[in-house]
Amino acid sequence: MNYKLLLQYDGTEFHGWQIQEDLRTVQGELTQALSLIDGRSVNVHGSGRTDAGVHAEGQVASVEIHREISATKLRAAINANIGRDVRVLTVEQVSDDFHARYSAIEKTYVYRIVNGPVMSPFWWRYSYQEARPLDLERMRKAAELFLGNHDWTAFSAAQSDVEDRVRTVTHAEVTESIDDRSPGSLIEFRVSAEGFLRYMVRAMAGTLMAVGRGELDTEAIRDALETSARPTAAVTAPACGLTLLSVRY
Amino acid sequence: MNYKLLLQYDGTEFHGWQIQEDLRTVQGELTQALSLIDGRSVNVHGSGRTDAGVHAEGQVASVEIHREISATKLRAAINANIGRDVRVLTVEQVSDDFHARYSAIEKTYVYRIVNGPVMSPFWWRYSYQEARPLDLERMRKAAELFLGNHDWTAFSAAQSDVEDRVRTVTHAEVTESIDDRSPGSLIEFRVSAEGFLRYMVRAMAGTLMAVGRGELDTEAIRDALETSARPTAAVTAPACGLTLLSVRY
Repeated sequence: MNYKLLLQYDGTEFHGWQIQEDLRTVQGELTQALSLIDGRSVNVHGSGRTDAGVHAEGQVASVEIHREISATKLRAAINANIGRDVRVLTVEQVSDDFHARYSAIEKTYVYRIVNGPVMSPFWWRYSYQEARPLDLERMRKAAELFLGNHDWTAFSAAQSDVEDRVRTVTHAEVTESIDDRSPGSLIEFRVSAEGFLRYMVRAMAGTLMAVGRGELDTEAIRDALETSARPTAAVTAPACGLTLLSVRY
Repeated sequence: MNYKLLLQYDGTEFHGWQIQEDLRTVQGELTQALSLIDGRSVNVHGSGRTDAGVHAEGQVASVEIHREISATKLRAAINANIGRDVRVLTVEQVSDDFHARYSAIEKTYVYRIVNGPVMSPFWWRYSYQEARPLDLERMRKAAELFLGNHDWTAFSAAQSDVEDRVRTVTHAEVTESIDDRSPGSLIEFRVSAEGFLRYMVRAMAGTLMAVGRGELDTEAIRDALETSARPTAAVTAPACGLTLLSVRY
């Protein structure tokens, strides 16, 4: 039986998604629980890796289980055997050809920024603090430039061995809200694409913050997308602000 | 100089507000930081104690400082010397007769419940999970009975040495919302009073949950308020769901 799992995790205390010997990872913790439940070693496939410290509100995994067990019981059994910073929200039986990674057609991430002089004790795990004022209108205009089909070499890990760095961004939006539990405003950068390169969303977020602080203009982003050279004021934003929101199939 | 501090803390890793030898407490951590800043031992007064595991979005403290320092610099100095699970949001110079505890005229607490079969990894620190369905309408009607002037003996710590257990509840409300980061609905019980007895809000919340599950009816609450005997199906709800929202002066 092939199962699709919808997952949430607080990535703060995980060394990322991908299984690694002697390190606590989400895939490792799920593999251990599911192997125990199935009585044999199982392979858990994620929609993609998330880096150390990155969170998920809607990560998807798939796994083949040989034991006969209802979806509800499987969810309860997994949740009883993993840490409370990772939860299986739903379990669904799916056709044999479903694969969390290969069947994915779009992913959405959010990068959260607390913009203010003090970081809330309720948000430090899930967002990045920028004490300097950020110009929302400038950030919004810059985010629009990310839309469409581009070569993202300037916005990805330098050492990546991926050859094709062209990806299509279908949605890019900057919003601001007030959260009762945060002394600063909460700025969110949401971005969707059929696929992302490593560090791509964090590089986009770091670039948008540089734009918001007035250190970069939109022209620099246009140049970066054309010449593949990262603008000098842009940095990769820290992992803690990044959350995988959803995966579309 | 007398200062008023507005504070937030995630109470999960504190043994409550009140200073205790060899235990990490909010008052203890603030006293240590402020004594270091002032170069002498200072007394930090809170609006009231919060128990181990209870959070605050708007706790207020007052402290006398002898060193000349601006409010902004004082805030930065304190925040640099305390854990990131407690933050000073604002510092304000106030008249000598201001006292965080004695000057308080009303406090507001919220008790948060995630109502659903799975607890979100983003809410387990700040809320209590009730997997059984809760009837909101029943809880709302029950909460209305809390309003007004009552003897709260049935809703407070049994061993309390407080003599006068009469308190006036000025606001009591049950609301439900959907939070993107929680698989279950988020139920909030908000209550305001000029003062609360120990465990009073948690006993009210535990009672409301028993009402919501259908184990208690509103008649039992009326009886409890009249006879001072706690209804048998009511329990004190766990600390993790409780947050001090604000203190009015």
